[in-house]
Amino acid sequence: MSFICCSYESTSSSGTTWTVVTPITFTYTVTQTKNLLDPSNDTLLLGHIRDTQQLEAIRSSTRPLKRFIVMDEVVYNLYGSQVTDYLEARHVLYRVLPLPTTEENKSMEMALKILEEVHQFGIDRRTEPIIAIGGGVCLDIVGLAASLYRRRTPYIRVPTTLLSYIDASVGAKTGVNFANCKNKLGTYIAPVAAFLDRSFIQTIPRRHISNGLAEMLKMALMKHRGLFELLETQGQFLLDSKFQSGMVLEDDRIDPASVSTRVAIETMLEELAPNLWEDDLDRLVDFGHLISPELEMKVLPALLHGEAVNIDMAYMVYVACEMGLLTEQEKFRIVCCMLGLELPVWHQDCTFALVQKSLCDRLQHSGGLVRMPLPTGLGRAEIFNDTDEGTLFRAYEKWCDELSTGSLR
Amino acid sequence: MSFICCSYESTSSSGTTWTVVTPITFTYTVTQTKNLLDPSNDTLLLGHIRDTQQLEAIRSSTRPLKRFIVMDEVVYNLYGSQVTDYLEARHVLYRVLPLPTTEENKSMEMALKILEEVHQFGIDRRTEPIIAIGGGVCLDIVGLAASLYRRRTPYIRVPTTLLSYIDASVGAKTGVNFANCKNKLGTYIAPVAAFLDRSFIQTIPRRHISNGLAEMLKMALMKHRGLFELLETQGQFLLDSKFQSGMVLEDDRIDPASVSTRVAIETMLEELAPNLWEDDLDRLVDFGHLISPELEMKVLPALLHGEAVNIDMAYMVYVACEMGLLTEQEKFRIVCCMLGLELPVWHQDCTFALVQKSLCDRLQHSGGLVRMPLPTGLGRAEIFNDTDEGTLFRAYEKWCDELSTGSLR
Ligand SMILES: NC(=O)c1ccc[n+]([C@@H]2O[C@H](COP(=O)([O-])OP(=O)(O)OC[C@H]3O[C@@H](n4cnc5c(N)ncnc54)[C@H](O)[C@@H]3O)[C@@H](O)[C@H]2O)c1
Ligand SMILES: NC(=O)c1ccc[n+]([C@@H]2O[C@H](COP(=O)([O-])OP(=O)(O)OC[C@H]3O[C@@H](n4cnc5c(N)ncnc54)[C@H](O)[C@@H]3O)[C@@H](O)[C@H]2O)c1
Ligand SMILES: [Zn+2]
Ligand SMILES: [Zn+2]
Repeated sequence: MSFICCSYESTSSSGTTWTVVTPITFTYTVTQTKNLLDPSNDTLLLGHIRDTQQLEAIRSSTRPLKRFIVMDEVVYNLYGSQVTDYLEARHVLYRVLPLPTTEENKSMEMALKILEEVHQFGIDRRTEPIIAIGGGVCLDIVGLAASLYRRRTPYIRVPTTLLSYIDASVGAKTGVNFANCKNKLGTYIAPVAAFLDRSFIQTIPRRHISNGLAEMLKMALMKHRGLFELLETQGQFLLDSKFQSGMVLEDDRIDPASVSTRVAIETMLEELAPNLWEDDLDRLVDFGHLISPELEMKVLPALLHGEAVNIDMAYMVYVACEMGLLTEQEKFRIVCCMLGLELPVWHQDCTFALVQKSLCDRLQHSGGLVRMPLPTGLGRAEIFNDTDEGTLFRAYEKWCDELSTGSLR
Repeated sequence: MSFICCSYESTSSSGTTWTVVTPITFTYTVTQTKNLLDPSNDTLLLGHIRDTQQLEAIRSSTRPLKRFIVMDEVVYNLYGSQVTDYLEARHVLYRVLPLPTTEENKSMEMALKILEEVHQFGIDRRTEPIIAIGGGVCLDIVGLAASLYRRRTPYIRVPTTLLSYIDASVGAKTGVNFANCKNKLGTYIAPVAAFLDRSFIQTIPRRHISNGLAEMLKMALMKHRGLFELLETQGQFLLDSKFQSGMVLEDDRIDPASVSTRVAIETMLEELAPNLWEDDLDRLVDFGHLISPELEMKVLPALLHGEAVNIDMAYMVYVACEMGLLTEQEKFRIVCCMLGLELPVWHQDCTFALVQKSLCDRLQHSGGLVRMPLPTGLGRAEIFNDTDEGTLFRAYEKWCDELSTGSLR
């Protein structure tokens, strides 16, 4: 981080006012790597250090490194021994804490539990980042805990689900659920680094691959026609191969797993980086996230995050179509692609009342504008504020008519 | 806040790394005002708004404002009706929450309690700042709660003790105690504004005036000889008058209450503003805060924060003297000034073992250097890293000899 600062003073009849203006620069890295848990790969321990001199000093020192690591329990059962073998091989002083980081447990209590363990273990708040290895839930809770400890302790994200690989790992958001609301408490504190290794994805259940594909599809629909077409044609292959590159497809350029993750991350970064603190309320990345938070919490744990997002997107595609932004044929292609990705496109609990309530809430929390991102073609989108109730309702009826269980499948 | 961003990509054999660099500018104001609770003064409701157009729009709108206000319970008993009268007179939709915000209750539990009430009341996370009225404890807890709510909700600080007036109100730190450690959890999120009205100070107990004077003395010893001399000569007057300007002293320039608070705030801002996130570890404002956190928590609630700070400073003055940085006469003047401010200069629980442990902890958490701010004269100071054990011990013995209970008073 770097600083310049200015503070100035003005005096009026009512008193003196000092204005403090402090620009702060946040820097973080997102690294795609292979064999993250291979003891010869030092990314996990040192990949966050950007200062080459500091890096050399650590490499040549004999002092053991110290790391506190939180792992999703399921991930721990699958990769725990690999992680501890890695740490042993590199003579790290470590503590690995496996936790049931599920959506239901995504709470401040769990963050505090982590902090108690961190505190007992003892880490240097500047040089010993906390490492989180798991899905989005684990990364979000650990990120929050680290943000709070000593007012900010660096942390590292290692996503192990497709969803967290392309989404949670890229941005600066941390959070837990509160008062039955999704991510109601949290911070905007980026990790020092995110390390992405696609091989974790091979063990996630097929349904969770679809779940991640939903967020990828979101970026495709908003910003990248090429990615949409890739998902349209290669969706099933990606599901079957679980994003593991085939022998034949060594070249990154033609391997759909590589290309799709890379494009998804790059389009995501393009949107997130200039707006890390979400001060700009007009966000294309909010597509699929207007109605879904309400729906997801309402039916918890029936729908996964990406599934709820996809249901939201499917309805919004109908809205866009009703507004003349999409042709019937484009709408059809999008819905087919969603079904090909094995994602739900409708849900009985997504009532029109829920749609209305969600949009009304958004209106209240977005400075009086609904700021609805809608596709205006395949891979193009705009923000709309003037969608009237009638349009929303007609779209809703058509959506139910065409996609409610029984009608399509 | 304003943004520019750059993200760049580099590819190596091990993979691709994207580096995200995002400068963010934080702006906040500290305003000294009079009659903050006079219904004709709109500072409390609108003083944080810097955009004149927005201000005009709100002033001319008939929509009632909405505010959630947390007050220290003691402050509520003294000023609660004035606050509610003010809000009623200005037709504000409000909820005032009085809480026993004591050092013992300074916990995440209390922050969550506040958040539950905020959530139930419902506020616009962008335009309806949470207001905290109370001492440093209240401001710190509310600041943390607001930092977390929806990942950052603006908040306003209204300090009602001398200590929080000149210290907690100026910076960006929020926090609660955790695992029996002072302010172990928190954030660096500045309030949108701090509104300072000295008249609150008239009801605080004499001991708490001394408490605040300790932090003022800290700034004086580190950076401002004039302020030191003012405290030396006017200390008793400030204690007696509780920082309320006398009739005779209408001119700010000669009123010691005005001058001392203004100079304290300005020297504090000078130090804090360029280092709001405390990334620079060499901090003069840390004077008196190396040993005191350990001492304060150890004897809680026997010593107030400023009292513990003063004991720490008194010992450090002996260290500076032992190192030849201060003359015996300067040391004597400083100790006399402390006694004149009715502050403790020694404590039996401040053992040499505690001194050693504190400095050792600091070494560990300050990148391997102890970074000890020491006076090098009256109102001048430097950071030292090479104070040896022998010096520390000799200073300790002399300190006990000269200042332990019974020897001086
Ligand atoms: N911070 C952000 O920017 C951001 C972005 C998107 C989503 N999120 C959050 O992420 C969460 C969803 O993330 P998720 O879908 O990864 O959910 P998750 O963390 O609940 O993981 C899904 C399931 O997969 C299991 N799992 C994880 N890795 C595995 C592996 N390699 N092999 C086998 N099983 C594995 C987990 O135990 C869990 O049961 C939500 O809470 C959402 O709010 C955050
Ligand atoms: N955030 C920061 O930068 C910062 C800086 C310095 C101190 N602090 C924190 O502030 C706390 C100490 O602050 P404090 O000394 O204000 O303590 P405090 O908040 O406990 O207040 C002291 C006492 O005065 C009472 N009180 C408050 N206002 C009063 C009034 N106007 N009239 C009568 N009684 C009143 C309170 O009820 C309390 O009993 C510590 O927890 C410290 O860590 C924070
Ligand atoms: Zn999402
Ligand atoms: Zn202090």
